[in-house]
Amino acid sequence: MNEPLKIGLAGLGTVGRGVIRMIEGSNGEAIARKLGRPVQITSVTARDRTKDRGVDISSYQWFETPEALAKEADIDVFVELIGGENGPALEATKIALGRGLDVVTANKAMLAMHSVKLAILAEEKDAKLLFEAAIAGGIPIVKTLKESLSGNQIKRVYGILNGTCNYILTVMQNEGKPFDVILKAAQEEGYAEADPSFDIGGIDAAHKLALLTSLCFGTETSFKDVYIEGIEKITPEDITAVDDLGYRIKLLGVALKTDEGIEQRVHPTLVPKNSAIGQVSGVTNCVCVDGDFVGKVMQVGPGAGEGPTASSVVGDIIEAASKDQSPVFTLPAKELMTYQRAPIRAHEGGYYVRLSLCDRPGTFAAIANRMAEFGISLESIVQRHQGDKFNSQNEEKTEAPAPVVIITHNTTELAVSEALQAIEQDGHIIGQPNMIRIERL
Amino acid sequence: MNEPLKIGLAGLGTVGRGVIRMIEGSNGEAIARKLGRPVQITSVTARDRTKDRGVDISSYQWFETPEALAKEADIDVFVELIGGENGPALEATKIALGRGLDVVTANKAMLAMHSVKLAILAEEKDAKLLFEAAIAGGIPIVKTLKESLSGNQIKRVYGILNGTCNYILTVMQNEGKPFDVILKAAQEEGYAEADPSFDIGGIDAAHKLALLTSLCFGTETSFKDVYIEGIEKITPEDITAVDDLGYRIKLLGVALKTDEGIEQRVHPTLVPKNSAIGQVSGVTNCVCVDGDFVGKVMQVGPGAGEGPTASSVVGDIIEAASKDQSPVFTLPAKELMTYQRAPIRAHEGGYYVRLSLCDRPGTFAAIANRMAEFGISLESIVQRHQGDKFNSQNEEKTEAPAPVVIITHNTTELAVSEALQAIEQDGHIIGQPNMIRIERL
Repeated sequence: MNEPLKIGLAGLGTVGRGVIRMIEGSNGEAIARKLGRPVQITSVTARDRTKDRGVDISSYQWFETPEALAKEADIDVFVELIGGENGPALEATKIALGRGLDVVTANKAMLAMHSVKLAILAEEKDAKLLFEAAIAGGIPIVKTLKESLSGNQIKRVYGILNGTCNYILTVMQNEGKPFDVILKAAQEEGYAEADPSFDIGGIDAAHKLALLTSLCFGTETSFKDVYIEGIEKITPEDITAVDDLGYRIKLLGVALKTDEGIEQRVHPTLVPKNSAIGQVSGVTNCVCVDGDFVGKVMQVGPGAGEGPTASSVVGDIIEAASKDQSPVFTLPAKELMTYQRAPIRAHEGGYYVRLSLCDRPGTFAAIANRMAEFGISLESIVQRHQGDKFNSQNEEKTEAPAPVVIITHNTTELAVSEALQAIEQDGHIIGQPNMIRIERL
Repeated sequence: MNEPLKIGLAGLGTVGRGVIRMIEGSNGEAIARKLGRPVQITSVTARDRTKDRGVDISSYQWFETPEALAKEADIDVFVELIGGENGPALEATKIALGRGLDVVTANKAMLAMHSVKLAILAEEKDAKLLFEAAIAGGIPIVKTLKESLSGNQIKRVYGILNGTCNYILTVMQNEGKPFDVILKAAQEEGYAEADPSFDIGGIDAAHKLALLTSLCFGTETSFKDVYIEGIEKITPEDITAVDDLGYRIKLLGVALKTDEGIEQRVHPTLVPKNSAIGQVSGVTNCVCVDGDFVGKVMQVGPGAGEGPTASSVVGDIIEAASKDQSPVFTLPAKELMTYQRAPIRAHEGGYYVRLSLCDRPGTFAAIANRMAEFGISLESIVQRHQGDKFNSQNEEKTEAPAPVVIITHNTTELAVSEALQAIEQDGHIIGQPNMIRIERL
């Protein structure tokens, strides 16, 4: 048996524990047989040395800081599981790459902000920078894009990239309760963070999308150019209304190449109920890729958690053992193209709009006319009755105006927002309209 | 730019044409940028040199036979797209590997029969034997299993592995017409072969399953140990009955590890309608893997066709350019474990059974009693009425006995077949019962 592959582990939270369990258990023996050499954790660091983590770390060399481990440990691969956009994670990663060590990271926030300069550093030092665990947990989409599909030109990538949001939307669907009630329950059950804004606000999905964009289109990572809407405004009424029309609401991240550049957006989206993506529920994630030769390929799997994320980290550790030296993204980092933002307002597709109408004659007609005026063709316009589908649990004021649900055919974001503005100014509606995009899959 | 990677292409059918289009077009330029060296087709062979294939092959060196190309061509990679279990495909592959050339093949029939000895030859010669295109077309499941998930111990692998069957079942679902009518239409539209027995009989799916088994469990490939049932016996009545009960019928290939060994089977299976796999329709394939750390991961995509298969072949050609030399399966071929067959009759799960009952008092009770006698617990037993769901188009004899549909809770194959035998001997049913397994996903 050859020399062991020596691992330094920075961060001993849920994922770190999973990595230890995977490498130290019977899987580690199987990995050694496959690789022809054992994988051995030699050094670790975390905030608290004495905390009980359910795994024995006494045989590993302890370092007080990630930076110290990255700088001094006798290792081949530095595994960064600290998290955070900047701070120790970034510093230690730079030090490790600077030494020419391979780095495996699950840190999407750091990569979304610093991927290009870290990739340049890695490639200069002939080191690998691997990040399968940073996008969609256990789903092997990074390797798929970098290797399996790398002969294709990718036209679009999209997916359900945040498990917390998908869990909340699934429970809203199943139980008909409002967003904030479900969120609170999810927090109590550990499916949502105490500060959930990163997840439900769409930031976490946008970090992953920005990385997928670089992998698919060979452009520099540009998180700041992602248009982001979270799921906070989705109501049980929306979920019931779209269900009746054959749809599900999912928080999708979508990136596509247009003549104007790259469009990146994260927002609630209607997808057909009778489709594979429409049936991806709970904390499960998925990523779909449209390639010019391969067509549509979708990968579905757990987006987070100890086992799935450890699976991707260990897959990358095994990859680090290979002799092959390929770019961090699909192209050498210095050849990544400048990101050119395509305006989201030009997005074409169908739209779902829910309005609360003032109850006076001619309102329906006025709305239909305004839509026509802006060139918007309607698939359906339905007044929903309180008694029918919305039970009193969801709708406390029984006196409230009945909502009207409109589904448009393909149109542009600009047309819809201008039409809605005109309708609002006409004084026909109460409150804000709720608009959700429909994605043609 | 470095030396080109020189390709010899044996077989210029649909997939061969796709490979030429992908490498010679703008994708080829993108691939060269990624690889740092161009990929260049230098030599070809096919049955007929002069046939118009819609691609220009005049600049390639022509060889009269695959064997001659494999033996004499100045190439780095031999791409085998001839097909067939034995004959020129096998001979040429052996010659190419014997020369130490990397081989890329889409030939599942050949590999299902000869994978171990070809893998041993490849590994002895330090050559690669790559076969992403042989399993589920454009879906990158081979690389996923060999690399991304290779730290996991796989418990089960299953999937929709034949596009023709899934297409026929989907159209039966949508149009309610009988199997043979749909098959004829599929043949006319080019979705089924003139001799469809390989596809609809489950053989093609079994070839792919046998290879998945080796990848997942590190065992020698054993096609002969796959239990195979095709879709010929599925009727529109079955499809309607299971639809009402919340299921879809799919031809699944399933392989799992039990205490007794490996169980491999291909047969029609009930899967929940409201699941991602239940919504994989038409010619689309999918492969699902249960790993001990990653949990359940599913990949969905086109299972055949020019573009998708070419995408996987070209992905393997790019892989051939890498310096890394890894085993053909997850373990070195000589270390693959002997295949130990687990008996299918021990399979546990639920069952769907459709019977035609003799119309006399006590029949229902007699059947329920027989089921109880063999320890089978029933989820439902429903007599279906002709007028209700089966229209006259599907059921010509309106005098025919009304079918009874039984769904069982978990039980064993042995119990169900013994109970059905007893019921048959009691003389309560007309014709053969139709039994379909339910897979717990």
